[in-house]
Amino acid sequence: MDPRTGLPVVGMVGAGQLARMTHQAGLALGLSLRVLADSPDDGAALVAADVTIGDYHDYDTLLRFAEGCDVLTFDHEHVPGELLHKLGTAGVTVLPGPEALLHAQDKRVMRERLSALGVAVPRWALVRTAQDIITFADGRWPVVAKAVRGGYDGRGVWFVAGADEARSLVSLVAKGAELLVEEQVPLVGELSALVARSPYGQVAAWPVVETVQREGICVEVLAPAPTIDGDRAVAAQRLAISLAAELGVVGVLAVELFDTGSELLVNELAMRPHNSGHWTIEGSLTSQFEQHLRAVLDYPLGLTRPLAQAVAMANVLGGGPGIDERLHHLFAADPGVKVHLYGKQSRPGRKMGHVTVLDEEMGRARQRARRAASALGEAV
Amino acid sequence: MDPRTGLPVVGMVGAGQLARMTHQAGLALGLSLRVLADSPDDGAALVAADVTIGDYHDYDTLLRFAEGCDVLTFDHEHVPGELLHKLGTAGVTVLPGPEALLHAQDKRVMRERLSALGVAVPRWALVRTAQDIITFADGRWPVVAKAVRGGYDGRGVWFVAGADEARSLVSLVAKGAELLVEEQVPLVGELSALVARSPYGQVAAWPVVETVQREGICVEVLAPAPTIDGDRAVAAQRLAISLAAELGVVGVLAVELFDTGSELLVNELAMRPHNSGHWTIEGSLTSQFEQHLRAVLDYPLGLTRPLAQAVAMANVLGGGPGIDERLHHLFAADPGVKVHLYGKQSRPGRKMGHVTVLDEEMGRARQRARRAASALGEAV
Repeated sequence: MDPRTGLPVVGMVGAGQLARMTHQAGLALGLSLRVLADSPDDGAALVAADVTIGDYHDYDTLLRFAEGCDVLTFDHEHVPGELLHKLGTAGVTVLPGPEALLHAQDKRVMRERLSALGVAVPRWALVRTAQDIITFADGRWPVVAKAVRGGYDGRGVWFVAGADEARSLVSLVAKGAELLVEEQVPLVGELSALVARSPYGQVAAWPVVETVQREGICVEVLAPAPTIDGDRAVAAQRLAISLAAELGVVGVLAVELFDTGSELLVNELAMRPHNSGHWTIEGSLTSQFEQHLRAVLDYPLGLTRPLAQAVAMANVLGGGPGIDERLHHLFAADPGVKVHLYGKQSRPGRKMGHVTVLDEEMGRARQRARRAASALGEAV
Repeated sequence: MDPRTGLPVVGMVGAGQLARMTHQAGLALGLSLRVLADSPDDGAALVAADVTIGDYHDYDTLLRFAEGCDVLTFDHEHVPGELLHKLGTAGVTVLPGPEALLHAQDKRVMRERLSALGVAVPRWALVRTAQDIITFADGRWPVVAKAVRGGYDGRGVWFVAGADEARSLVSLVAKGAELLVEEQVPLVGELSALVARSPYGQVAAWPVVETVQREGICVEVLAPAPTIDGDRAVAAQRLAISLAAELGVVGVLAVELFDTGSELLVNELAMRPHNSGHWTIEGSLTSQFEQHLRAVLDYPLGLTRPLAQAVAMANVLGGGPGIDERLHHLFAADPGVKVHLYGKQSRPGRKMGHVTVLDEEMGRARQRARRAASALGEAV
């Protein structure tokens, strides 16, 4: 509890854009998010009052950071589970807890657990050798290889077109890194079912969204997903709600889904605010960032009612210098677009920010969001 | 310009809730608001990364604070005009500029200027002695006495019921403080017309709202104002737009109006984000805080479209300890209410935060907002 305000202290490991936007949401709840940053130039470190620079791989750093926090939560899934267990033993409240979080950290554990629960996932296998991949493919290339741990935003994912690529991939990443391989599923589209769950067991779901990927990176999110009907959207929400409960998730859970047209297959899980939920800042009565805080603090959750018929979010990627000038032009071109910049140095393909458009019609929302993101960064 | 982000640096003098919510809005624009705080416990000082503790009456403090800022703006109107002129001469961009700001600092200057512009104000006079007040009243008590400078939130305003009160008031405040006295206008209601203006000359207006006062403190804001018809609302917007242009305001301008039923009289001007605009955070596509930043940075302004048919805001006043527990109960009772806490220590009557409700019907919006504010603080 912060004696200055009589309100709890939330510590977030990681200080990227998710922490930045969580801090923003926390201000309204009377909070000042405490962040553990890699560098003083991290997006949240630039804007928060309570910043520690330190290495989240180091137990003592984590323990000191957690001191005085009512709850410890995350902007990424990279903190080793054994450290989180140790923190729990030391009396730190870690949410989501390490048992739940493991399913967002380890794709093997996640897929085994989901299969045991009878949840559909793409056909997959653990592989150690190039021959394992070739055997799995059985002539039906390409297949998709994934690092069991540590991948995100298209990193740790490889499309393998044939035996030669399988060999070079294995020689490249064979530093003891576990790999899994899966079929490339024929897709109608990709979806995300976003929910939040509190320790009390309350779960709140947002409308299911479509996520549009380019080279493994999410470039657009459309809310609600225009490609699926109401029944299947409800089925996806129910799946996410039951997974949150089954896995004991606390906070936001994003269930990324492959839609084959006939079936919904779980692709990935994330247990934190997620790129597919950025649209909720303006598009829903309760944003994913506020909801994540309410959940980890065990406050009753907020209504997730959408505030427009169609909401489109587009990521701002790279873009180079002159962001201030480009912002001027964008605001003149579309005074209704909502802009979120993360304060990062520009690099090609890097997520520099996002834009959100509320509209009555999805086609126009999408066009406006895409134009706005392209005005600020690379063409999307 | 912040070399880390390529985006401008905005400095705000004052670190209360207005600065806190401006910082919150600035995060989305890639900014990290620099605040000049009286104390490290000020609402914005608790949550911002770039905080200077210092006295805004001291020129050197202001000049050092402004160094590296692209623009200097305000969370209150108390910085002496002569210091702002001096900063301007030293090359600091001060917005709103001191010539405009004077009309929010000095009620005499404001009323003389408005009268010269043909804008209706309550009948008023400067007074020095109790006899001046008695002469002005001419037997029609009560009259309203106001400090020409320095008043806010009901401070510096006195309702004078008769000659004896006039005498004790003048003896109490006669430390050289200028006073004016005005007729107590028979009111249908009080309104606020909020606009923002950029240096380029663009002006954007929000719907005119009704403000409900109790003992000189705003307790509720209803958007749009339910008490006036469309034509008179447009007239109030036009008045605010023309005043912003006439006075050369840059940033948000709140024109507080007395509605007598037949006439709109200007009561006060404020040149900063204003309590009557807090509803815009959730209720309008562009909040007053984002718009203030866009205006002082000379960005094109954002659309002010409302996001609900009825929006009610209620201030959370005082309330004592146990705010965390009360928040739990409120969220359980009404999961749709949006809460804003300012991180302040509780004192009776102090503005601790506010709540906003979006609804389809004003009666219900108002009831929900009032209940929520009463759950968190004193009954309103």
